Amino acid sequence: MSGAEEVGLVTPIREVFSENLALASGQTLAGFELITETYGQLNSQRSNAVLICHALSGNHHAAGRYNHSDPKPGWWDLHVGPGKAIDTNRFFVVSLNNIGGCDGSSGPNTMNPETQQPWGPNFPQVSVNDWVTTQALLADRLGIDSWAVVVGGSLGGMQAIHWAVHYPERVRNCVALAAAPKLTAQNIAFNEIARQAILSDPDWLAGYYQQETVTPTRGLSLARMVGHLTYMSADGMSDRFGRDTREMPSDAINAGEMVFQVESYLRYQGKQFSTRFDANTYLLMTRALDRFDIAADFDDSLSDAMAATTCRMLITAFSSDWRFSPARSRELVDALLASGRPVSYAEIETDAGHDAFLLDEPRYTGLFTAWMQQVVI
Amino acid sequence: MSGAEEVGLVTPIREVFSENLALASGQTLAGFELITETYGQLNSQRSNAVLICHALSGNHHAAGRYNHSDPKPGWWDLHVGPGKAIDTNRFFVVSLNNIGGCDGSSGPNTMNPETQQPWGPNFPQVSVNDWVTTQALLADRLGIDSWAVVVGGSLGGMQAIHWAVHYPERVRNCVALAAAPKLTAQNIAFNEIARQAILSDPDWLAGYYQQETVTPTRGLSLARMVGHLTYMSADGMSDRFGRDTREMPSDAINAGEMVFQVESYLRYQGKQFSTRFDANTYLLMTRALDRFDIAADFDDSLSDAMAATTCRMLITAFSSDWRFSPARSRELVDALLASGRPVSYAEIETDAGHDAFLLDEPRYTGLFTAWMQQVVI
Repeated sequence: MSGAEEVGLVTPIREVFSENLALASGQTLAGFELITETYGQLNSQRSNAVLICHALSGNHHAAGRYNHSDPKPGWWDLHVGPGKAIDTNRFFVVSLNNIGGCDGSSGPNTMNPETQQPWGPNFPQVSVNDWVTTQALLADRLGIDSWAVVVGGSLGGMQAIHWAVHYPERVRNCVALAAAPKLTAQNIAFNEIARQAILSDPDWLAGYYQQETVTPTRGLSLARMVGHLTYMSADGMSDRFGRDTREMPSDAINAGEMVFQVESYLRYQGKQFSTRFDANTYLLMTRALDRFDIAADFDDSLSDAMAATTCRMLITAFSSDWRFSPARSRELVDALLASGRPVSYAEIETDAGHDAFLLDEPRYTGLFTAWMQQVVI
Repeated sequence: MSGAEEVGLVTPIREVFSENLALASGQTLAGFELITETYGQLNSQRSNAVLICHALSGNHHAAGRYNHSDPKPGWWDLHVGPGKAIDTNRFFVVSLNNIGGCDGSSGPNTMNPETQQPWGPNFPQVSVNDWVTTQALLADRLGIDSWAVVVGGSLGGMQAIHWAVHYPERVRNCVALAAAPKLTAQNIAFNEIARQAILSDPDWLAGYYQQETVTPTRGLSLARMVGHLTYMSADGMSDRFGRDTREMPSDAINAGEMVFQVESYLRYQGKQFSTRFDANTYLLMTRALDRFDIAADFDDSLSDAMAATTCRMLITAFSSDWRFSPARSRELVDALLASGRPVSYAEIETDAGHDAFLLDEPRYTGLFTAWMQQVVI
């Protein structure tokens, strides 16, 4: 990573689409908007474009800062920038907030043009399929016939895989990090508990909280605590928190009480998240995650699904990720191999759990960077 | 298990203790009551007594039925009865509801004699230490100088270990199933999420819900969903639920909606639990679980703690139990061996997760039964 820099100041772009969007659910959106960011320069052959697909709580702001006093760069700044794995000296990088999200693209907290009210709980259920459809429309608009790379982690990796399977002519390389061909029952169960936490909050108001200017922050905070905990590994948590205790600060409900560090950490994470994320979006995103099943359109044959791909593929899993375990990534790899497709597979030894794909783990960073350098543009 | 029968009809017994009980927290209970059950006959030498210690949500009703139309026997009926592992033809079995519980023993939903109001949130925080103290007073009353066996699973196993370490002269055999010397950060974090679910329920009312004749059922239900999910294994859930879906019944909020089986199962489990358990008790029990650390009184040396034991010991873990993993049981075994203590260790291959200790897994049942048959009375 020596010599790697940030992409600098970036500005979100609003892309307005007036066409009707037929969703996988059977519903139709009469037009939609996407908030995007781009980093680097599109070359004259339009052959160096990389699409970043975000995960459950991500958005379009993957790299760079909005102003010089911005305290934090985008969520994947460690891997997007000059000299980084997704090298903005070589690539033109496109990042977007998916529809149903809560960071500017059409979703529960934007206006329903028909009612001039926030969509709230009436925003239609979206799916990985729908997101890829809108990303393809965005590619059309940008004049990108085929992506040099489609890349994503977790739910983002599922979008990358969907691209590779359903738009093989438009994806030359695909990177799926900490992903899975579909969720397990346990994984669905964690999402369901997060959803029930939101639905149990009296400020949920059947999803119409925006009209009442309240937000179900307790439920959303609890939902995030469940998620955050499952994205860490047991060993990682032991190393970081052990059984250390701390006194709750004077502004806490239980001021002065001794609690374990891990408790106070999780409460803080939950609270922070609940101030920036939208509860209706959380329900939509987890439902989309639960329902994703790449083999479903291929008579439940994962090999047949993978046989539809034509791109170079990198699958990466993290040893301590128990929410999207290496075993699930290996199912993808086995299916690709069974179909005679080219695939590189890396299982990174780490205590960082599911969130490792967001971090700068040396072996992961090195491998990801080297693989991306081999992408032909 | 051939020839094994049930213990038949049983009746709870109320034991009233008028002495002051000094708790580990520094607080004092001015008298307390224990609800108990016994199965089998105490022999004339009073040498065949077995103490069952219950886990987080357990109680005194370990075996038998209350009447002939009782639909379910006690919670450990599979392993307590004539010819079973805890053989009531040989042993006199004592089971109790711990203080702080919600099934009749002194706890948040019993009366505070000083105020003539339910204790509610003012019932003092209790600990494994306190439970064992009250169990020892119960043994005194029953004329039991030493237990043939002290046995428990999970939090019950922690009590059994505490007995063996702190009352070596009163325990001749000790069985700790799916237990641990202390909780990990991850384990504490799951308990904290369960607690926050209760504390976030508007019907929690700072614990004074009994006076208002409401109960924080949503929070308690959510707490149980978290717990229940973590007591199952990922593979076990995949086998049982997979990605099967079902339509929600007509009396559900989301009637007609298709949901995954595992979602509807967890919601049902949560709802059932919330009608039988007390939220203040749930907080007390999880706090006691978090704070248990058998090595704490021995300068954090687990070997020194185990060196204080003199009994024959059986430690059993279950391969797919990730909440109290085999690695944690092996810490106990290693410490016992390092101290030259006799110990049998069994790691049972099963998909049943933490709850396996409650079930009739053939290898577990066989081994547990054989080990118990070797207990000298």
